[in-house]
Amino acid sequence: MLSFVVDAKDKNCSARAGTIKTTHGIIETPIFMPVGTVGSVKTLTPDELYEIGATIILGNTYHLHLRPGDDIVAHFGGLHRFMNWKRNILTDSGGFQVFSLADLNKITEDGVEFKSHIDGSKHFFSPEISMEIQKKLGSDIVMAFDECVPYPSEKSYVAKSLERTTRWAKRCKEYSLDYHQSLFGIVQGGVFKDLRKISADQLIDLDFPGYAIGGLSVGEEIPLMYEIAEYTAQLLPEEKPRYLMGVGTPEDILNGISFGIDMFDCVMPTRNARNALLFTSEGRLSIKRADLAKSDDPIDKNCDCYTCRNFSRGYLRHLYKAGEILAMRLNTIHNLHFYISLVKSARNAIINGNFEAFKNDMLLKLNQGGNNV
Amino acid sequence: MLSFVVDAKDKNCSARAGTIKTTHGIIETPIFMPVGTVGSVKTLTPDELYEIGATIILGNTYHLHLRPGDDIVAHFGGLHRFMNWKRNILTDSGGFQVFSLADLNKITEDGVEFKSHIDGSKHFFSPEISMEIQKKLGSDIVMAFDECVPYPSEKSYVAKSLERTTRWAKRCKEYSLDYHQSLFGIVQGGVFKDLRKISADQLIDLDFPGYAIGGLSVGEEIPLMYEIAEYTAQLLPEEKPRYLMGVGTPEDILNGISFGIDMFDCVMPTRNARNALLFTSEGRLSIKRADLAKSDDPIDKNCDCYTCRNFSRGYLRHLYKAGEILAMRLNTIHNLHFYISLVKSARNAIINGNFEAFKNDMLLKLNQGGNNV
Repeated sequence: MLSFVVDAKDKNCSARAGTIKTTHGIIETPIFMPVGTVGSVKTLTPDELYEIGATIILGNTYHLHLRPGDDIVAHFGGLHRFMNWKRNILTDSGGFQVFSLADLNKITEDGVEFKSHIDGSKHFFSPEISMEIQKKLGSDIVMAFDECVPYPSEKSYVAKSLERTTRWAKRCKEYSLDYHQSLFGIVQGGVFKDLRKISADQLIDLDFPGYAIGGLSVGEEIPLMYEIAEYTAQLLPEEKPRYLMGVGTPEDILNGISFGIDMFDCVMPTRNARNALLFTSEGRLSIKRADLAKSDDPIDKNCDCYTCRNFSRGYLRHLYKAGEILAMRLNTIHNLHFYISLVKSARNAIINGNFEAFKNDMLLKLNQGGNNV
Repeated sequence: MLSFVVDAKDKNCSARAGTIKTTHGIIETPIFMPVGTVGSVKTLTPDELYEIGATIILGNTYHLHLRPGDDIVAHFGGLHRFMNWKRNILTDSGGFQVFSLADLNKITEDGVEFKSHIDGSKHFFSPEISMEIQKKLGSDIVMAFDECVPYPSEKSYVAKSLERTTRWAKRCKEYSLDYHQSLFGIVQGGVFKDLRKISADQLIDLDFPGYAIGGLSVGEEIPLMYEIAEYTAQLLPEEKPRYLMGVGTPEDILNGISFGIDMFDCVMPTRNARNALLFTSEGRLSIKRADLAKSDDPIDKNCDCYTCRNFSRGYLRHLYKAGEILAMRLNTIHNLHFYISLVKSARNAIINGNFEAFKNDMLLKLNQGGNNV
């Protein structure tokens, strides 16, 4: 079971710095978790992730169940050993993918029947099955099986769904995980504050070691997402880690931190990297740009990642244009380093009592380069 | 200009160990040169190549001329700086690609007009233009511009062609390269020993610091390739490095070494790696094999490469099946490590006076796993 302490709180907003401890080490929060969908953070080795400073990565239960299969991963002693990753792993419940990726057949009180997006084969996920799979994967943080409703949804449906998500969370809690695993509850309720309150209260009653805010960044406008995230974060216990699932841009993360969120994950830095879109301290940069062909500069003069220490924009542009796989690797290293440095800097600012100034300065910088793309 | 000394010679065959010195460091021979076609050895960083033990890589003049263009590379101070590679580089002349990849238009005494395989644009390579491009690329070893005739070809055509290749070699030699660059002549003559002899004699008259055997491994049977390679190698000066271009399998390299060849290059280890075919001390292994799904073993128990030290066959199979880019990287590291270890071991065996036993033992081992694929 994990432990969590709040190391420092900001005076002007809800931002906080904390420390999570598990059997796989320390996670200083706020933290960004690179997404390792199917047993690798795309293009990178564990050693590269250590160098970037990643202390926890995310694995996808849905994907790993379909390929290679959780029995295979269990044969190797769990996901840590399978992929040779020695730090923390959080696995999602498969709920989000079942609803977003799979060909959905039927939701019942018992669970969800769905077809694989890979081969159309039929599968069934219930709270117990999701727990069983995540137990086999051996992740340090296990997510409760929930229904992530689409946006927009009828309020009546969202209300009905969140009640079922609570009943499912209870069933997850009754499942016996490994001693080293911690189960997080996921607050749902769509964009309706009263429903978020109901969901949060019900889950807090179940006393999880951590809470996630699910069902956001699924199509709603950003101001509404911020409003619901901030509102929901305040409902959650101070002494437990808070995780905003699947969010988001650097701007979203800075705002999320100010709402009191501790943990973030998103495919954006890795996916964008593979599509030539880079994050820098002066805004976004498309490495495809023709005018970079002779640029001797690194991606970001303020960055000390492996890519920026060793390669020019001109070389990276060439690699990308020539379709070289090395382009995706080097871009991924940079983008993940940017995200992880961002949350590290936010943490330091919180501890040093100047988070608000840091945040406003970063938001300005991130915007100034809006035209670079 | 490079220097070359023969450190040791085998008593039973023509195998020899040597040392090439250039401004970019020492190359102990026999050596295998990973192919970095378009400014990267596909999927790998220079640091990974250093760890594997690569002391020289190959760059392709044709590809780099088309993309990003030699002016761009020159802007960055040459290929070493452009790709941040600190050891040696050999560039080919573009001749082979002009004849094999491009849409060929016309060969004249002056040079070759061809269309780009990328966009169909028209280009012209002459001996002088090839030298100019390679000077801009700044490679340590520059290859003379030659015609690589297809197999089979009429003897009369091969004879005519090799005479032109000699005239082109003379023109290359007259071109003023950078002080640190060394120009190798390329012996042609197809599968005809008398023509190989004529070509070798003509090129030796021009006194190059090294000689390549070109025009082999282009479709002829392996025994014939060996026969011509061995015959041609014997024609070349003892005191100059000998390079067998574009060859080959581990078996080919062992045999090539026994013929007195010092340098090899081939896309086989890198290309096969990306297609799941791995080289091991017990023969070839397809990492796609279903029965490897639960294998805890490394690719090769006798290998100490990064991949074998850290990952199982089961994990690598999964990565490959899931289409993860990391699979190509890890497979490439292993295959290149295998090739470079093979030539290092051959070198040690030559120095220790047991090359023949080593070679026969390795050929047996390489064959025993023929069924593993």
